[in-house]
Amino acid sequence: MGKARATSDDPFKGYRVKGKFKLRDFDPEATPFARGDEAAQRTRLDALATELDALQDRLHAGGERKLLLVLQGMDTSGKDGTIRWVFSKTSPLGVRVAAFKAPTEEERARDFLWRCHAVVPRAGELMVWNRSHYEDVLVPPVNGWIDKDETTRRCEQINAFESLLTDTGTQIVKCFLHISPDEQKKRLQARVDDPAKHWKFSMGDLEVRKQWPQYMRAYERALAATSSAAAPWYVIPANDKLHRNLMIAELLVRTLQNMKLAPPQANSALAGLRVE
Amino acid sequence: MGKARATSDDPFKGYRVKGKFKLRDFDPEATPFARGDEAAQRTRLDALATELDALQDRLHAGGERKLLLVLQGMDTSGKDGTIRWVFSKTSPLGVRVAAFKAPTEEERARDFLWRCHAVVPRAGELMVWNRSHYEDVLVPPVNGWIDKDETTRRCEQINAFESLLTDTGTQIVKCFLHISPDEQKKRLQARVDDPAKHWKFSMGDLEVRKQWPQYMRAYERALAATSSAAAPWYVIPANDKLHRNLMIAELLVRTLQNMKLAPPQANSALAGLRVE
Repeated sequence: MGKARATSDDPFKGYRVKGKFKLRDFDPEATPFARGDEAAQRTRLDALATELDALQDRLHAGGERKLLLVLQGMDTSGKDGTIRWVFSKTSPLGVRVAAFKAPTEEERARDFLWRCHAVVPRAGELMVWNRSHYEDVLVPPVNGWIDKDETTRRCEQINAFESLLTDTGTQIVKCFLHISPDEQKKRLQARVDDPAKHWKFSMGDLEVRKQWPQYMRAYERALAATSSAAAPWYVIPANDKLHRNLMIAELLVRTLQNMKLAPPQANSALAGLRVE
Repeated sequence: MGKARATSDDPFKGYRVKGKFKLRDFDPEATPFARGDEAAQRTRLDALATELDALQDRLHAGGERKLLLVLQGMDTSGKDGTIRWVFSKTSPLGVRVAAFKAPTEEERARDFLWRCHAVVPRAGELMVWNRSHYEDVLVPPVNGWIDKDETTRRCEQINAFESLLTDTGTQIVKCFLHISPDEQKKRLQARVDDPAKHWKFSMGDLEVRKQWPQYMRAYERALAATSSAAAPWYVIPANDKLHRNLMIAELLVRTLQNMKLAPPQANSALAGLRVE
Protein backbone atom coordinates (compact mmCIF):
# COMPACT_ATOMS: atom_id res chain seq x y z
CA MET A 1 0.00 0.00 0.00
CA GLY A 2 1.24 3.48 -0.71
CA LYS A 3 0.07 6.98 -1.46
CA ALA A 4 -1.27 6.17 -4.92
CA ARG A 5 -4.15 3.87 -4.20
CA ALA A 6 -6.88 4.00 -6.83
CA THR A 7 -6.57 1.44 -9.59
CA SER A 8 -9.22 1.12 -12.24
CA ASP A 9 -9.87 -2.60 -11.81
CA ASP A 10 -9.98 -2.79 -8.03
CA PRO A 11 -10.61 0.52 -6.34
CA PHE A 12 -10.27 -1.14 -2.92
CA LYS A 13 -6.80 -2.51 -3.48
CA GLY A 14 -5.03 0.42 -1.88
CA TYR A 15 -7.20 0.14 1.22
CA ARG A 16 -6.83 -3.59 1.77
CA VAL A 17 -4.32 -4.42 4.47
CA LYS A 18 -1.45 -6.66 3.37
CA GLY A 19 1.12 -7.12 6.07
CA LYS A 20 2.73 -4.36 8.09
CA PHE A 21 1.54 -0.80 7.54
CA LYS A 22 1.17 2.54 9.25
CA LEU A 23 -2.23 4.12 9.80
CA ARG A 24 -0.66 7.56 9.40
CA ASP A 25 -0.18 6.69 5.71
CA PHE A 26 -3.97 6.81 5.39
CA ASP A 27 -5.68 10.18 5.46
CA PRO A 28 -8.93 9.95 7.47
CA GLU A 29 -10.14 13.03 5.56
CA ALA A 30 -9.78 11.33 2.16
CA THR A 31 -12.91 10.74 0.08
CA PRO A 32 -11.64 8.56 -2.78
CA PHE A 33 -15.05 7.00 -3.41
CA ALA A 34 -16.93 10.31 -3.61
CA ARG A 35 -18.17 11.36 -7.06
CA GLY A 36 -20.04 14.59 -7.69
CA ASP A 37 -21.79 16.77 -5.13
CA GLU A 38 -23.50 15.67 -1.95
CA ALA A 39 -26.85 15.12 -3.65
CA ALA A 40 -25.24 12.88 -6.25
CA GLN A 41 -23.49 10.91 -3.52
CA ARG A 42 -26.72 10.44 -1.60
CA THR A 43 -28.42 9.19 -4.74
CA ARG A 44 -25.57 6.76 -5.31
CA LEU A 45 -25.69 5.52 -1.71
CA ASP A 46 -29.41 4.88 -2.14
CA ALA A 47 -28.73 2.92 -5.31
CA LEU A 48 -26.00 0.88 -3.61
CA ALA A 49 -28.23 0.20 -0.61
CA THR A 50 -30.98 -0.99 -2.96
CA GLU A 51 -28.51 -3.23 -4.81
CA LEU A 52 -27.29 -4.57 -1.49
CA ASP A 53 -30.87 -5.45 -0.57
CA ALA A 54 -31.28 -7.41 -3.83
CA LEU A 55 -28.01 -9.26 -3.26
CA GLN A 56 -28.95 -10.05 0.32
CA ASP A 57 -32.24 -11.49 -0.96
CA ARG A 58 -30.26 -13.76 -3.23
CA LEU A 59 -27.95 -14.77 -0.38
CA HIS A 60 -31.00 -15.63 1.70
CA ALA A 61 -32.79 -17.47 -1.11
CA GLY A 62 -29.67 -19.57 -1.75
CA GLY A 63 -29.56 -20.53 1.93
CA GLU A 64 -25.94 -21.73 1.78
CA ARG A 65 -23.35 -18.94 1.87
CA LYS A 66 -22.95 -16.42 4.69
CA LEU A 67 -21.55 -12.91 4.91
CA LEU A 68 -19.96 -11.48 8.03
CA LEU A 69 -19.14 -7.78 8.22
CA VAL A 70 -16.86 -6.85 11.11
CA LEU A 71 -16.82 -3.17 12.11
CA GLN A 72 -14.07 -1.82 14.31
CA GLY A 73 -13.02 1.71 15.16
CA MET A 74 -12.47 4.14 17.99
CA ASP A 75 -15.43 5.66 19.87
CA THR A 76 -17.58 7.86 17.57
CA SER A 77 -15.90 6.42 14.46
CA GLY A 78 -19.34 5.69 13.02
CA LYS A 79 -20.07 2.00 13.49
CA ASP A 80 -23.74 2.59 14.34
CA GLY A 81 -24.16 5.12 11.54
CA THR A 82 -22.64 2.71 9.04
CA ILE A 83 -25.14 0.03 9.98
CA ARG A 84 -28.06 2.44 9.78
CA TRP A 85 -27.25 3.90 6.37
CA VAL A 86 -25.55 1.07 4.49
CA PHE A 87 -28.51 -1.18 5.33
CA SER A 88 -31.19 1.49 4.96
CA LYS A 89 -32.90 -0.49 2.19
CA THR A 90 -32.48 -3.93 3.72
CA SER A 91 -35.31 -5.60 5.61
CA PRO A 92 -34.63 -6.22 9.32
CA LEU A 93 -35.18 -9.84 8.31
CA GLY A 94 -32.13 -9.66 6.07
CA VAL A 95 -29.45 -8.35 8.38
CA ARG A 96 -28.65 -9.31 11.95
CA VAL A 97 -26.40 -7.27 14.23
CA ALA A 98 -24.41 -8.48 17.21
CA ALA A 99 -22.79 -5.87 19.45
CA PHE A 100 -19.84 -6.76 21.63
CA LYS A 101 -19.31 -4.83 24.85
CA ALA A 102 -16.92 -5.42 27.72
CA PRO A 103 -17.17 -9.15 28.37
CA THR A 104 -19.46 -10.33 31.15
CA GLU A 105 -18.36 -12.69 33.90
CA GLU A 106 -19.93 -15.61 31.99
CA GLU A 107 -18.00 -14.62 28.89
CA ARG A 108 -14.71 -14.09 30.69
CA ALA A 109 -15.05 -17.60 32.10
CA ARG A 110 -14.56 -18.95 28.54
CA ASP A 111 -12.01 -18.38 25.79
CA PHE A 112 -12.38 -15.01 24.09
CA LEU A 113 -13.86 -16.49 20.90
CA TRP A 114 -16.68 -18.29 22.68
CA ARG A 115 -19.16 -15.43 22.62
CA CYS A 116 -18.34 -14.71 18.98
CA HIS A 117 -18.81 -18.27 17.80
CA ALA A 118 -22.27 -18.20 19.36
CA VAL A 119 -23.39 -15.48 16.94
CA VAL A 120 -21.74 -16.40 13.62
CA PRO A 121 -24.07 -16.00 10.63
CA ARG A 122 -26.26 -18.95 9.76
CA ALA A 123 -26.65 -20.26 6.19
CA GLY A 124 -28.04 -17.51 3.96
CA GLU A 125 -27.48 -14.81 6.55
CA LEU A 126 -25.81 -11.41 6.45
CA MET A 127 -24.45 -10.61 9.88
CA VAL A 128 -22.78 -7.47 11.21
CA TRP A 129 -20.52 -7.46 14.25
CA ASN A 130 -20.48 -4.06 15.92
CA ARG A 131 -17.04 -4.43 17.53
CA SER A 132 -15.86 -8.02 17.69
CA HIS A 133 -13.24 -10.53 18.83
CA TYR A 134 -10.69 -7.89 17.81
CA GLU A 135 -11.44 -5.96 21.00
CA ASP A 136 -9.51 -8.76 22.72
CA VAL A 137 -6.31 -7.94 20.84
CA LEU A 138 -6.74 -4.20 21.33
CA VAL A 139 -7.94 -3.35 24.84
CA PRO A 140 -5.83 -5.90 26.78
CA PRO A 141 -2.45 -5.08 25.16
CA VAL A 142 -3.05 -1.32 25.32
CA ASN A 143 -3.75 -1.62 29.03
CA GLY A 144 -0.88 -4.03 29.67
CA TRP A 145 -3.15 -6.91 30.68
CA ILE A 146 -1.53 -9.23 28.16
CA ASP A 147 1.97 -9.14 26.68
CA LYS A 148 3.11 -9.17 23.07
CA ASP A 149 3.43 -12.95 22.91
CA GLU A 150 -0.11 -13.45 24.14
CA THR A 151 -1.38 -10.87 21.65
CA THR A 152 0.42 -12.72 18.85
CA ARG A 153 -1.06 -16.01 20.02
CA ARG A 154 -4.55 -14.54 20.06
CA CYS A 155 -4.11 -13.24 16.53
CA GLU A 156 -3.17 -16.76 15.43
CA GLN A 157 -6.23 -18.10 17.22
CA ILE A 158 -8.33 -15.51 15.42
CA ASN A 159 -6.87 -16.60 12.07
CA ALA A 160 -7.68 -20.22 12.80
CA PHE A 161 -11.22 -19.31 13.87
CA GLU A 162 -11.81 -17.19 10.79
CA SER A 163 -10.42 -19.98 8.56
CA LEU A 164 -13.01 -22.29 10.04
CA LEU A 165 -15.71 -19.81 9.09
CA THR A 166 -14.43 -19.10 5.58
CA ASP A 167 -13.86 -22.83 4.93
CA THR A 168 -17.48 -23.47 5.79
CA GLY A 169 -19.02 -20.90 3.48
CA THR A 170 -18.67 -17.55 5.23
CA GLN A 171 -17.26 -14.56 3.40
CA ILE A 172 -15.70 -12.23 5.96
CA VAL A 173 -15.20 -8.49 5.37
CA LYS A 174 -13.49 -6.45 8.06
CA CYS A 175 -13.56 -2.65 8.12
CA PHE A 176 -11.55 -0.34 10.32
CA LEU A 177 -13.32 3.03 10.47
CA HIS A 178 -10.42 5.45 10.42
CA ILE A 179 -11.07 8.85 11.98
CA SER A 180 -8.61 11.48 13.20
CA PRO A 181 -8.25 12.47 16.86
CA ASP A 182 -9.55 15.94 15.93
CA GLU A 183 -12.65 14.48 14.36
CA GLN A 184 -13.28 12.39 17.47
CA LYS A 185 -12.86 15.50 19.61
CA LYS A 186 -15.58 17.25 17.58
CA ARG A 187 -17.92 14.29 17.79
CA LEU A 188 -17.43 13.72 21.52
CA GLN A 189 -17.89 17.44 22.17
CA ALA A 190 -21.13 17.35 20.17
CA ARG A 191 -22.39 14.58 22.44
CA VAL A 192 -21.43 16.56 25.53
CA ASP A 193 -23.09 19.72 24.21
CA ASP A 194 -26.40 18.01 23.43
CA PRO A 195 -28.18 16.81 26.59
CA ALA A 196 -30.25 14.43 24.45
CA LYS A 197 -26.99 12.65 23.54
CA HIS A 198 -25.56 12.39 27.05
CA TRP A 199 -26.69 8.78 27.32
CA LYS A 200 -24.25 7.93 24.52
CA PHE A 201 -21.35 9.45 26.41
CA SER A 202 -19.25 7.87 29.10
CA MET A 203 -16.37 9.45 31.01
CA GLY A 204 -14.47 6.30 30.13
CA ASP A 205 -14.48 7.49 26.50
CA LEU A 206 -12.08 10.25 27.54
CA GLU A 207 -9.71 7.77 29.17
CA VAL A 208 -9.59 5.68 26.01
CA ARG A 209 -9.08 8.85 23.98
CA LYS A 210 -5.90 9.57 25.98
CA GLN A 211 -4.53 6.23 24.76
CA TRP A 212 -5.05 7.11 21.08
CA PRO A 213 -1.45 6.49 19.92
CA GLN A 214 -1.33 3.16 21.75
CA TYR A 215 -4.61 2.11 20.15
CA MET A 216 -3.36 3.04 16.69
CA ARG A 217 -0.29 0.86 17.23
CA ALA A 218 -2.45 -2.00 18.52
CA TYR A 219 -4.72 -1.69 15.48
CA GLU A 220 -1.73 -1.67 13.11
CA ARG A 221 -0.40 -4.87 14.64
CA ALA A 222 -3.73 -6.67 14.87
CA LEU A 223 -4.86 -5.77 11.35
CA ALA A 224 -1.50 -6.70 9.81
CA ALA A 225 -1.54 -10.06 11.60
CA THR A 226 -5.08 -11.01 10.62
CA SER A 227 -5.71 -9.67 7.11
CA SER A 228 -5.91 -12.49 4.56
CA ALA A 229 -7.37 -12.92 1.09
CA ALA A 230 -10.29 -14.84 2.55
CA ALA A 231 -10.90 -12.40 5.39
CA PRO A 232 -9.31 -9.07 4.46
CA TRP A 233 -9.13 -5.90 6.52
CA TYR A 234 -9.95 -2.57 4.89
CA VAL A 235 -8.98 0.85 6.18
CA ILE A 236 -11.98 3.11 5.60
CA PRO A 237 -11.31 6.87 5.66
CA ALA A 238 -14.19 7.88 7.93
CA ASN A 239 -14.01 11.56 8.85
CA ASP A 240 -16.61 12.13 6.14
CA LYS A 241 -19.65 10.10 7.12
CA LEU A 242 -21.26 10.02 3.70
CA HIS A 243 -18.02 8.84 2.11
CA ARG A 244 -17.63 6.15 4.75
CA ASN A 245 -21.12 4.83 3.98
CA LEU A 246 -20.54 4.93 0.23
CA MET A 247 -17.24 3.10 0.44
CA ILE A 248 -18.56 0.34 2.68
CA ALA A 249 -21.77 -0.07 0.68
CA GLU A 250 -19.76 -0.40 -2.51
CA LEU A 251 -17.37 -2.83 -0.84
CA LEU A 252 -20.25 -5.05 0.27
CA VAL A 253 -21.97 -4.91 -3.12
CA ARG A 254 -18.70 -5.92 -4.84
CA THR A 255 -18.05 -8.64 -2.30
CA LEU A 256 -21.50 -10.15 -2.79
CA GLN A 257 -21.18 -9.86 -6.57
CA ASN A 258 -17.84 -11.67 -6.38
CA MET A 259 -19.46 -14.47 -4.42
CA LYS A 260 -21.34 -15.22 -7.67
CA LEU A 261 -24.47 -16.29 -5.85
CA ALA A 262 -26.69 -18.41 -8.07
CA PRO A 263 -30.17 -17.08 -8.77
CA PRO A 264 -32.92 -18.86 -6.83
CA GLN A 265 -33.41 -22.41 -8.08
CA ALA A 266 -36.63 -23.29 -9.83
CA ASN A 267 -38.26 -26.53 -8.71
CA SER A 268 -39.39 -28.45 -11.78
CA ALA A 269 -41.85 -30.43 -9.67
CA LEU A 270 -43.93 -27.23 -9.38
CA ALA A 271 -44.40 -26.76 -13.12
CA GLY A 272 -48.10 -26.53 -13.92
CA LEU A 273 -49.20 -27.01 -10.30
CA ARG A 274 -52.59 -25.46 -9.51
CA VAL A 275 -53.20 -24.40 -5.94
CA GLU A 276 -56.72 -25.43 -4.84
CA MET B 1 -66.47 -6.76 19.30
CA GLY B 2 -69.06 -6.45 16.60
CA LYS B 3 -69.60 -5.16 13.11
CA ALA B 4 -69.27 -1.49 14.05
CA ARG B 5 -65.66 -1.23 15.11
CA ALA B 6 -64.24 2.24 14.58
CA THR B 7 -64.44 4.55 17.57
CA SER B 8 -62.94 7.99 17.47
CA ASP B 9 -60.85 7.65 20.64
CA ASP B 10 -59.41 4.18 20.05
CA PRO B 11 -59.55 3.01 16.45
CA PHE B 12 -58.09 -0.35 17.45
CA LYS B 13 -60.76 -1.20 19.98
CA GLY B 14 -62.87 -3.21 17.56
CA TYR B 15 -59.86 -5.26 16.53
CA ARG B 16 -58.58 -6.10 20.00
CA VAL B 17 -59.55 -9.59 21.09
CA LYS B 18 -61.55 -9.77 24.32
CA GLY B 19 -62.69 -13.27 25.08
CA LYS B 20 -64.48 -15.60 22.69
CA PHE B 21 -64.97 -14.45 19.11
CA LYS B 22 -65.33 -15.72 15.56
CA LEU B 23 -62.81 -14.85 12.89
CA ARG B 24 -65.60 -14.90 10.30
CA ASP B 25 -66.92 -11.72 11.94
CA PHE B 26 -63.79 -9.99 10.65
CA ASP B 27 -63.55 -9.21 6.95
CA PRO B 28 -59.98 -9.87 5.72
CA GLU B 29 -60.72 -7.46 2.83
CA ALA B 30 -61.53 -4.56 5.14
CA THR B 31 -59.29 -1.47 5.04
CA PRO B 32 -60.51 0.56 8.03
CA PHE B 33 -57.18 2.35 8.45
CA ALA B 34 -56.85 3.41 4.81
CA ARG B 35 -57.32 7.13 4.08
CA GLY B 36 -57.14 8.59 0.60
CA ASP B 37 -55.61 7.00 -2.48
CA GLU B 38 -52.66 4.65 -2.64
CA ALA B 39 -50.10 7.45 -2.92
CA ALA B 40 -51.54 9.13 0.18
CA GLN B 41 -51.39 5.83 2.05
CA ARG B 42 -47.77 5.26 1.08
CA THR B 43 -46.88 8.75 2.27
CA ARG B 44 -48.62 8.06 5.56
CA LEU B 45 -46.85 4.71 5.98
CA ASP B 46 -43.53 6.47 5.43
CA ALA B 47 -44.43 9.06 8.06
CA LEU B 48 -45.47 6.35 10.53
CA ALA B 49 -42.28 4.37 9.86
CA THR B 50 -40.24 7.52 10.49
CA GLU B 51 -42.15 8.20 13.73
CA LEU B 52 -41.59 4.58 14.75
CA ASP B 53 -37.86 5.03 14.20
CA ALA B 54 -37.83 8.09 16.47
CA LEU B 55 -39.79 6.25 19.17
CA GLN B 56 -37.48 3.24 18.92
CA ASP B 57 -34.53 5.60 19.41
CA ARG B 58 -36.13 6.84 22.59
CA LEU B 59 -36.80 3.29 23.77
CA HIS B 60 -33.15 2.45 23.15
CA ALA B 61 -31.84 5.64 24.79
CA GLY B 62 -33.97 4.95 27.87
CA GLY B 63 -32.49 1.47 28.12
CA GLU B 64 -35.22 0.18 30.45
CA ARG B 65 -38.46 -0.75 28.73
CA LYS B 66 -38.84 -3.37 25.99
CA LEU B 67 -41.29 -3.93 23.17
CA LEU B 68 -42.18 -7.34 21.79
CA LEU B 69 -44.22 -7.63 18.60
CA VAL B 70 -45.60 -11.12 17.95
CA LEU B 71 -46.68 -11.86 14.38
CA GLN B 72 -48.84 -14.88 13.62
CA GLY B 73 -50.78 -15.88 10.54
CA MET B 74 -51.25 -18.57 7.94
CA ASP B 75 -48.62 -19.10 5.21
CA THR B 76 -48.37 -16.04 2.90
CA SER B 77 -50.30 -13.88 5.37
CA GLY B 78 -47.52 -11.29 5.18
CA LYS B 79 -45.35 -11.65 8.28
CA ASP B 80 -42.11 -11.03 6.34
CA GLY B 81 -43.61 -8.14 4.38
CA THR B 82 -44.86 -6.52 7.57
CA ILE B 83 -41.38 -6.60 9.05
CA ARG B 84 -39.83 -5.18 5.89
CA TRP B 85 -42.20 -2.25 5.45
CA VAL B 86 -43.23 -1.31 8.99
CA PHE B 87 -39.54 -1.07 9.94
CA SER B 88 -38.35 0.41 6.65
CA LYS B 89 -37.05 3.51 8.44
CA THR B 90 -35.61 1.76 11.46
CA SER B 91 -31.90 0.98 11.72
CA PRO B 92 -31.04 -2.73 11.84
CA LEU B 93 -29.53 -1.77 15.19
CA GLY B 94 -32.99 -0.83 16.43
CA VAL B 95 -35.04 -3.91 15.70
CA ARG B 96 -34.18 -7.56 16.18
CA VAL B 97 -36.13 -10.41 14.61
CA ALA B 98 -36.41 -13.99 15.82
CA ALA B 99 -38.06 -16.54 13.54
CA PHE B 100 -39.55 -19.72 14.92
CA LYS B 101 -39.67 -22.79 12.71
CA ALA B 102 -40.57 -26.37 13.49
CA PRO B 103 -38.72 -27.09 16.76
CA THR B 104 -35.38 -28.85 16.56
CA GLU B 105 -34.54 -31.92 18.60
CA GLU B 106 -32.71 -29.72 21.14
CA GLU B 107 -35.78 -27.53 21.44
CA ARG B 108 -38.23 -30.40 21.70
CA ALA B 109 -36.15 -31.76 24.56
CA ARG B 110 -37.22 -28.73 26.64
CA ASP B 111 -40.55 -27.13 27.48
CA PHE B 112 -42.07 -25.23 24.54
CA LEU B 113 -41.30 -21.80 26.03
CA TRP B 114 -37.57 -22.47 26.42
CA ARG B 115 -36.53 -21.33 22.97
CA CYS B 116 -38.73 -18.25 23.25
CA HIS B 117 -37.37 -17.17 26.62
CA ALA B 118 -33.88 -17.31 25.12
CA VAL B 119 -34.74 -14.48 22.70
CA VAL B 120 -36.91 -12.10 24.71
CA PRO B 121 -36.05 -8.42 24.13
CA ARG B 122 -33.33 -6.95 26.30
CA ALA B 123 -33.68 -3.58 28.04
CA GLY B 124 -34.25 -0.84 25.45
CA GLU B 125 -34.90 -3.31 22.67
CA LEU B 126 -37.66 -3.67 20.10
CA MET B 127 -38.01 -7.30 19.15
CA VAL B 128 -40.20 -9.01 16.55
CA TRP B 129 -41.15 -12.66 16.73
CA ASN B 130 -41.90 -14.05 13.29
CA ARG B 131 -44.19 -16.86 14.46
CA SER B 132 -43.82 -17.65 18.13
CA HIS B 133 -44.76 -19.82 21.10
CA TYR B 134 -48.30 -19.68 19.69
CA GLU B 135 -47.33 -22.27 17.08
CA ASP B 136 -47.37 -24.74 19.97
CA VAL B 137 -51.06 -24.14 20.64
CA LEU B 138 -51.95 -24.25 16.94
CA VAL B 139 -50.08 -27.01 15.10
CA PRO B 140 -50.29 -29.74 17.79
CA PRO B 141 -54.06 -29.47 18.46
CA VAL B 142 -54.91 -29.19 14.75
CA ASN B 143 -52.95 -32.37 14.12
CA GLY B 144 -54.33 -34.15 17.16
CA TRP B 145 -50.94 -34.40 18.88
CA ILE B 146 -52.30 -32.78 22.05
CA ASP B 147 -55.84 -32.72 23.41
CA LYS B 148 -58.01 -29.79 24.48
CA ASP B 149 -56.92 -30.00 28.12
CA GLU B 150 -53.28 -29.83 27.16
CA THR B 151 -53.96 -26.91 24.83
CA THR B 152 -55.75 -25.09 27.65
CA ARG B 153 -52.85 -25.80 30.00
CA ARG B 154 -50.36 -24.44 27.46
CA CYS B 155 -52.40 -21.27 27.06
CA GLU B 156 -52.26 -20.80 30.83
CA GLN B 157 -48.50 -21.36 30.72
CA ILE B 158 -48.26 -18.76 27.98
CA ASN B 159 -50.23 -16.28 30.07
CA ALA B 160 -47.92 -16.83 33.04
CA PHE B 161 -44.85 -16.45 30.82
CA GLU B 162 -46.16 -13.26 29.25
CA SER B 163 -47.06 -11.88 32.70
CA LEU B 164 -43.45 -12.39 33.71
CA LEU B 165 -42.36 -10.36 30.70
CA THR B 166 -44.90 -7.57 31.12
CA ASP B 167 -44.22 -7.38 34.88
CA THR B 168 -40.55 -6.84 34.10
CA GLY B 169 -40.95 -3.98 31.65
CA THR B 170 -41.93 -5.57 28.36
CA GLN B 171 -44.89 -4.23 26.40
CA ILE B 172 -46.27 -7.06 24.28
CA VAL B 173 -48.31 -6.52 21.10
CA LYS B 174 -49.67 -9.54 19.27
CA CYS B 175 -51.01 -9.39 15.72
CA PHE B 176 -52.89 -12.06 13.83
CA LEU B 177 -52.59 -11.35 10.10
CA HIS B 178 -56.03 -12.25 8.83
CA ILE B 179 -56.23 -13.30 5.17
CA SER B 180 -58.94 -15.20 3.34
CA PRO B 181 -58.42 -18.68 1.85
CA ASP B 182 -58.92 -17.14 -1.62
CA GLU B 183 -56.19 -14.59 -1.00
CA GLN B 184 -53.83 -17.35 0.15
CA LYS B 185 -54.65 -19.31 -2.99
CA LYS B 186 -53.63 -16.32 -5.12
CA ARG B 187 -50.41 -15.79 -3.20
CA LEU B 188 -49.39 -19.45 -3.22
CA GLN B 189 -50.17 -19.68 -6.93
CA ALA B 190 -48.00 -16.61 -7.55
CA ARG B 191 -45.11 -18.40 -5.83
CA VAL B 192 -45.66 -21.51 -7.92
CA ASP B 193 -45.86 -19.50 -11.13
CA ASP B 194 -42.61 -17.61 -10.50
CA PRO B 195 -39.56 -19.93 -10.56
CA ALA B 196 -37.59 -17.29 -8.64
CA LYS B 197 -40.04 -17.77 -5.76
CA HIS B 198 -40.02 -21.57 -5.70
CA TRP B 199 -37.61 -21.57 -2.78
CA LYS B 200 -40.32 -19.93 -0.69
CA PHE B 201 -42.78 -22.72 -1.49
CA SER B 202 -43.11 -26.09 0.17
CA MET B 203 -45.56 -28.85 -0.70
CA GLY B 204 -46.31 -28.93 3.02
CA ASP B 205 -47.95 -25.51 2.59
CA LEU B 206 -50.73 -27.22 0.64
CA GLU B 207 -51.29 -29.76 3.42
CA VAL B 208 -51.63 -26.97 5.99
CA ARG B 209 -53.97 -25.14 3.59
CA LYS B 210 -56.33 -28.13 3.62
CA GLN B 211 -56.66 -27.71 7.39
CA TRP B 212 -57.75 -24.06 7.08
CA PRO B 213 -61.03 -24.38 9.07
CA GLN B 214 -59.27 -26.30 11.84
CA TYR B 215 -56.56 -23.64 12.03
CA MET B 216 -59.15 -20.86 12.23
CA ARG B 217 -60.79 -22.64 15.16
CA ALA B 218 -57.42 -23.16 16.84
CA TYR B 219 -56.60 -19.46 16.38
CA GLU B 220 -59.96 -18.41 17.79
CA ARG B 221 -59.39 -20.49 20.91
CA ALA B 222 -55.75 -19.54 21.42
CA LEU B 223 -56.29 -15.82 20.88
CA ALA B 224 -59.35 -15.71 23.12
CA ALA B 225 -57.46 -17.53 25.88
CA THR B 226 -54.36 -15.32 25.78
CA SER B 227 -55.48 -11.77 24.99
CA SER B 228 -55.10 -9.50 28.01
CA ALA B 229 -54.84 -5.75 28.59
CA ALA B 230 -51.09 -6.09 29.12
CA ALA B 231 -50.54 -8.36 26.12
CA PRO B 232 -53.49 -7.94 23.73
CA TRP B 233 -54.15 -9.75 20.49
CA TYR B 234 -55.24 -7.76 17.45
CA VAL B 235 -56.95 -9.14 14.35
CA ILE B 236 -55.38 -7.35 11.37
CA PRO B 237 -57.36 -7.45 8.11
CA ALA B 238 -54.49 -8.41 5.80
CA ASN B 239 -55.72 -9.15 2.29
CA ASP B 240 -54.61 -5.62 1.40
CA LYS B 241 -50.87 -5.47 2.09
CA LEU B 242 -50.59 -1.71 2.28
CA HIS B 243 -53.46 -1.54 4.75
CA ARG B 244 -51.93 -4.27 6.85
CA ASN B 245 -48.66 -2.31 7.08
CA LEU B 246 -50.44 0.95 7.87
CA MET B 247 -52.54 -0.60 10.62
CA ILE B 248 -49.61 -2.32 12.32
CA ALA B 249 -47.34 0.73 11.99
CA GLU B 250 -50.03 2.90 13.57
CA LEU B 251 -50.61 0.33 16.30
CA LEU B 252 -46.92 0.28 17.19
CA VAL B 253 -46.62 4.07 17.14
CA ARG B 254 -49.61 4.38 19.47
CA THR B 255 -48.32 1.64 21.73
CA LEU B 256 -44.92 3.30 22.07
CA GLN B 257 -46.57 6.69 22.61
CA ASN B 258 -48.71 5.18 25.35
CA MET B 259 -45.59 3.82 27.04
CA LYS B 260 -44.75 7.50 27.71
CA LEU B 261 -41.04 6.94 27.34
CA ALA B 262 -39.07 9.71 28.99
CA PRO B 263 -36.78 11.74 26.73
CA PRO B 264 -33.08 10.89 27.11
CA GLN B 265 -31.73 12.04 30.46
CA ALA B 266 -29.19 14.84 30.54
CA ASN B 267 -26.19 14.24 32.76
CA SER B 268 -25.52 17.39 34.75
CA ALA B 269 -21.93 16.26 35.34
CA LEU B 270 -21.24 16.95 31.66
CA ALA B 271 -22.27 20.62 31.78
CA GLY B 272 -19.43 22.77 30.51
CA LEU B 273 -17.10 19.81 29.89
CA ARG B 274 -14.48 20.45 27.20
CA VAL B 275 -13.16 17.40 25.34
CA GLU B 276 -9.38 17.65 24.93
